[in-house]
Amino acid sequence: MEEIYLDNSATTRVCEKSAEKVLELMTQCYGNPSSLHKKGLEAQREVAHARQAVAVSLSAQPREIIFTSGGTEANNLAVLGGAAAGRRRGKRIVTTAIEHPSVLEPMRQLEKEGFEVVFLTPDADGRVPEEAVLKAVTGDTILISVMAVNNELGSIQPIEVLKKAVKRAGAPALVHVDGVQAYGKLPLRPEKLGIDLLTVSGHKIHGPKGVGALYVSKNARILPRTFGGGQERELRPGTEAAPLIAGLGAAVEELPDWRQAYSRMEKLRDYTLQKLSGLEGVEVNSPVEGLPYLLNFSALGIRSETMLHFLAQRGIYVSSGSACAKGKQSHVLKAAGLPDSRISSAIRVSFSRESTKRDADALAEGVREGLACLARARR
Amino acid sequence: MEEIYLDNSATTRVCEKSAEKVLELMTQCYGNPSSLHKKGLEAQREVAHARQAVAVSLSAQPREIIFTSGGTEANNLAVLGGAAAGRRRGKRIVTTAIEHPSVLEPMRQLEKEGFEVVFLTPDADGRVPEEAVLKAVTGDTILISVMAVNNELGSIQPIEVLKKAVKRAGAPALVHVDGVQAYGKLPLRPEKLGIDLLTVSGHKIHGPKGVGALYVSKNARILPRTFGGGQERELRPGTEAAPLIAGLGAAVEELPDWRQAYSRMEKLRDYTLQKLSGLEGVEVNSPVEGLPYLLNFSALGIRSETMLHFLAQRGIYVSSGSACAKGKQSHVLKAAGLPDSRISSAIRVSFSRESTKRDADALAEGVREGLACLARARR
Repeated sequence: MEEIYLDNSATTRVCEKSAEKVLELMTQCYGNPSSLHKKGLEAQREVAHARQAVAVSLSAQPREIIFTSGGTEANNLAVLGGAAAGRRRGKRIVTTAIEHPSVLEPMRQLEKEGFEVVFLTPDADGRVPEEAVLKAVTGDTILISVMAVNNELGSIQPIEVLKKAVKRAGAPALVHVDGVQAYGKLPLRPEKLGIDLLTVSGHKIHGPKGVGALYVSKNARILPRTFGGGQERELRPGTEAAPLIAGLGAAVEELPDWRQAYSRMEKLRDYTLQKLSGLEGVEVNSPVEGLPYLLNFSALGIRSETMLHFLAQRGIYVSSGSACAKGKQSHVLKAAGLPDSRISSAIRVSFSRESTKRDADALAEGVREGLACLARARR
Repeated sequence: MEEIYLDNSATTRVCEKSAEKVLELMTQCYGNPSSLHKKGLEAQREVAHARQAVAVSLSAQPREIIFTSGGTEANNLAVLGGAAAGRRRGKRIVTTAIEHPSVLEPMRQLEKEGFEVVFLTPDADGRVPEEAVLKAVTGDTILISVMAVNNELGSIQPIEVLKKAVKRAGAPALVHVDGVQAYGKLPLRPEKLGIDLLTVSGHKIHGPKGVGALYVSKNARILPRTFGGGQERELRPGTEAAPLIAGLGAAVEELPDWRQAYSRMEKLRDYTLQKLSGLEGVEVNSPVEGLPYLLNFSALGIRSETMLHFLAQRGIYVSSGSACAKGKQSHVLKAAGLPDSRISSAIRVSFSRESTKRDADALAEGVREGLACLARARR
């Protein structure tokens, strides 16, 4: 059976160049980058090359890139390390109610430690209003964390307003952006946008799982969460996972021009939308202005998991909400004010550069049959 | 030029089975283990298989294995998470002066937070005396952390006495063992030894870099250091790095019978020792009773880095101290009471199951020429 993978916001297939690089560093250039001999230097050079590639992709400097074990660690380092660095200057933190758990959960920890965390609510499109951000940031705010693109709805957040809010309030705040779903798909230039900390993940861009990066502006100071051999500017010690880092670098170098990919994706999303909206019982949850890589809809009356498994039977792989919220009701759709009937029947489809119209056709056909078949079964 | 890699305590080449597994999971079975569809389940199954393999190797239960990004993260989780869980019961922690930086540095953090940390000193053989451990552990000790094998000297620590010390003192202490250099080379049965937390690293046993594990006894409670999607029993969230985890599992399954490997390694170590001790100016730093995989010696009068580079020129790769302490004077050799002349000229040779007598011959010949050549140059 042909497999149609439409769950690229959960994870992607590692592209050939990246996989080759990982393999090369595991079996040939396998030294410890901290070793002083040739095997170490070779690995060190690969790490430096990847750091350069990630830096270039963010219009940043190599020393501003800290490699981590993935998005979750980078988000934790940014939020907890940022708050720890700023704790003497204030206790207020501003974020949104629709962040990824790897931001929300550290925030809840900070609340326990006495920080005052403001969770902004999005509008019905899943977008946090600019005015809400501007209003929330006060003079004693030490950290703002807003994701660039929401991982369930694809809504694009107003990250360009964050720095403005900080300046207007005269706040000592560090600005953190979780760029996991946006990186490689939208231009992200942290310095230009006044972003101090930006999270990137490898496995969402056809790179390996187990690696990510945190951009830490040369002007920003955060405290480490892990302590050891001093690697990664003492912000993230441990033997550098050179194969993964080099694999991430290779995946970054393979990223297509974002504009071309974006417009191709818009066509694919619109095509899919058109197909799906023709079906009775389908309601679209993603905003029209959202990132076209992602499409969230509800097949009313059919529980998400039921539809997901029905589609999976036909080799079509989608998601109910995010992969990281396995089983739980979506906090994002709830915060966006969707009714329970829509939340419990939500399906997230996420494309990659390998996705085609044929995939969309198969999906729409699958959903159509699912609606017919599963609704009948319920009667 | 033939390469003779004798720096296996720094890192090892990934074995074929492990590399194949990583590749398979990056490019075919690439799902997110948390995804509910087939691609997710496939990946989940691979993770479960690897967890089982690691558990079996430690005579433990699968649920006692928490995958991390490596030894440093596992050590940090054990030390900081263990101390956090025990802080209401006491402030005393016992460790040694010769731990890896990924234990020592978290300990220094804990000191800043008000914990009282006792750093035990080893004897001249680099071994912490049993009596010292028994004496140091008092009724208010909440954590003990002692490595199984020292990474610079190969000295085997008395980890079997740790539980005894806890019991005798009636302490609420968790027992942590950094097993990074011992795992796969010595039998480690945490439950039998009364160990609550045990650290394992992938890349020291021909598995991938970027993955490790912390054994957390089902009876032990530690607090997480990272917060997010709830993976790994909420102790270590983030998308499971399934390719690496499966690669670690494969490397574990490829581990030879420790006894056979050990006795083969003893022969190789003794052979190397014999060759080296014939050279004037060579003094052996490793204890006779140490792990035979590792041999630390000094080529008197020649700085470690100089000898290292001389050998590297001939394709022989060794280490000066540990890879994680790049450039700094060894805190281990210092704690073991070696004179500066020995410390500054120390070389660590570390074997793997791929090492041969020919490698030892080449090493000894290289050291001989190095001593002749470099000493002459200094005159």
